[in-house]
Amino acid sequence: MSLPRLTLLACALAFAGSALAQTAPAPAAKKGKTMQDVIDASTASDWRTLDPAHTLYLELASGRVVIELAPSFAPRHVANIETLAKGHYWDGLAIVRSQDNFVVQWGDPTDTEKEPARARPFGAAEKKLPAEFTAPAKDLPFTRLADVDGWAPQVGFSNGFPAGRDPKTNVAWLAHCYGTVGAGRNNAPDSSTGAELYVVTGQSPRQLDRNITTVGRVVQGMERLSALPRGMGGGGFYQFPDQYTWIRAITLASEVPEAERTDLQVMRTDTATWQALVESRRNRKDDFYHFAVNHIDLCNVPIPVRATPKDDAAK
Amino acid sequence: MSLPRLTLLACALAFAGSALAQTAPAPAAKKGKTMQDVIDASTASDWRTLDPAHTLYLELASGRVVIELAPSFAPRHVANIETLAKGHYWDGLAIVRSQDNFVVQWGDPTDTEKEPARARPFGAAEKKLPAEFTAPAKDLPFTRLADVDGWAPQVGFSNGFPAGRDPKTNVAWLAHCYGTVGAGRNNAPDSSTGAELYVVTGQSPRQLDRNITTVGRVVQGMERLSALPRGMGGGGFYQFPDQYTWIRAITLASEVPEAERTDLQVMRTDTATWQALVESRRNRKDDFYHFAVNHIDLCNVPIPVRATPKDDAAK
Repeated sequence: MSLPRLTLLACALAFAGSALAQTAPAPAAKKGKTMQDVIDASTASDWRTLDPAHTLYLELASGRVVIELAPSFAPRHVANIETLAKGHYWDGLAIVRSQDNFVVQWGDPTDTEKEPARARPFGAAEKKLPAEFTAPAKDLPFTRLADVDGWAPQVGFSNGFPAGRDPKTNVAWLAHCYGTVGAGRNNAPDSSTGAELYVVTGQSPRQLDRNITTVGRVVQGMERLSALPRGMGGGGFYQFPDQYTWIRAITLASEVPEAERTDLQVMRTDTATWQALVESRRNRKDDFYHFAVNHIDLCNVPIPVRATPKDDAAK
Repeated sequence: MSLPRLTLLACALAFAGSALAQTAPAPAAKKGKTMQDVIDASTASDWRTLDPAHTLYLELASGRVVIELAPSFAPRHVANIETLAKGHYWDGLAIVRSQDNFVVQWGDPTDTEKEPARARPFGAAEKKLPAEFTAPAKDLPFTRLADVDGWAPQVGFSNGFPAGRDPKTNVAWLAHCYGTVGAGRNNAPDSSTGAELYVVTGQSPRQLDRNITTVGRVVQGMERLSALPRGMGGGGFYQFPDQYTWIRAITLASEVPEAERTDLQVMRTDTATWQALVESRRNRKDDFYHFAVNHIDLCNVPIPVRATPKDDAAK
């Protein structure tokens, strides 16, 4: 009942999702390497800096959400999203949906079928794109996870994204985990453009894998989306515009002055350090754990994020 | 981009979590039975009414959260929680933690190690309990899920709760899915009493299975917990009392006048209807889906909840 007890539970369970890596020294008593130990022992080459040309800043009244786009998985959609961002397409539009244990979603709230003249123009962006549910596996690096997965023949990490892969059809796809960003569509597979985007805020809806085009992942600021009030309309849509969360702007990081960018590094997923991190999650070494299950699910591996350490930046 | 398009995505993806079953008629075009078809075709015997002796009402300023307790999995903890509720232990205490993609947690915010005299007294409840991480499997019904699971030799549903089972050690346990309620503890296995409770609000943290005592499941009102602002202290703890969400009361439903109870039925998990529901999730029949994966994870099967239909109640 005490706060110390609560705090201990907190420490044992921390880093459930992606978060800025903590740099506090690890406590003395240990049964093996914890995730924090692995992070603390990492070197500069275990990290990569986000590419500003493929990083989106979603600016809300509550602050910035940073999204890493995945051009290797959905090149046409990502290019279109970048064109929309450069054209300020989303500035002043809104988050129109928050469905509990599922997604938030944003786009143009105008009913464009009834009032097409009022819809936000696409500018230089494409109005029609092919579906990009999967990508050729040969073009994608893949650090395979040894653990069984019911949703895909193989799972692992590709360029820092959780992914599935099918060796029979030689395709790979960005998996629907917490924080994954996808392109909303109608029933027709080729009805997405990237103008409507959703972010997974609940239990990984892996049934959507290979059924929709996924375009990236939130790497910072998830809590600005996941804690939004749930919409009370069908599917978690808000029923009235005064319930919307307005989008101040969605900007490509490369379009933002360098001093105003968010300095972020993401842990590489193709290193020995990464393998050690996965192992620290597969069999938890924290003193809190008494039963080691020797398993980890694709969507239960947090991909650490940090600000560039000062001594690295000085080099 | 249109609202109709957004709405279609919504319909195709709806019911991601547990929610009140909708009774709207199903649309005409179908590839097979959707979950809504299964619910619509269910009969009174496919549902069970919550037992008020094992149902908790967590009363917040935002409304009521309904928790079904699982005495078959953790008899000592559940009995203690019921004693604490009868003694009004939690009334005026607080939700002290909300960690993104993990849990919310409530209890006595007093630092009882430093100020034991200020701690809320336990009354008739036990201050020390044995760990109840697992229960004898022979005492528990089990509708096994055919699908592979990396966290447990067998998974399925027992008395309406998602569960794991190990035939080698003949034990079963209530699994950590979205909405699962567990008893916070210190590092010692027997350091939980049920006075501090947490609810899973993110990706299922199945690594906690068999490592902590789970006591029940939220069956209604999850959005009153999952959308709470995230705590900015370590482990998602709030840093200041003015950030807490205060608990008006936690009451056993049987202690509440009948007219003030929440009328809820939960779909039974041991019927042919249940098997049909699982199949409708394993291979989605909505027009939205083009790729049928032929798999479902334990924590991705929503357990439908409804108010007792008027014609049933009249019988």
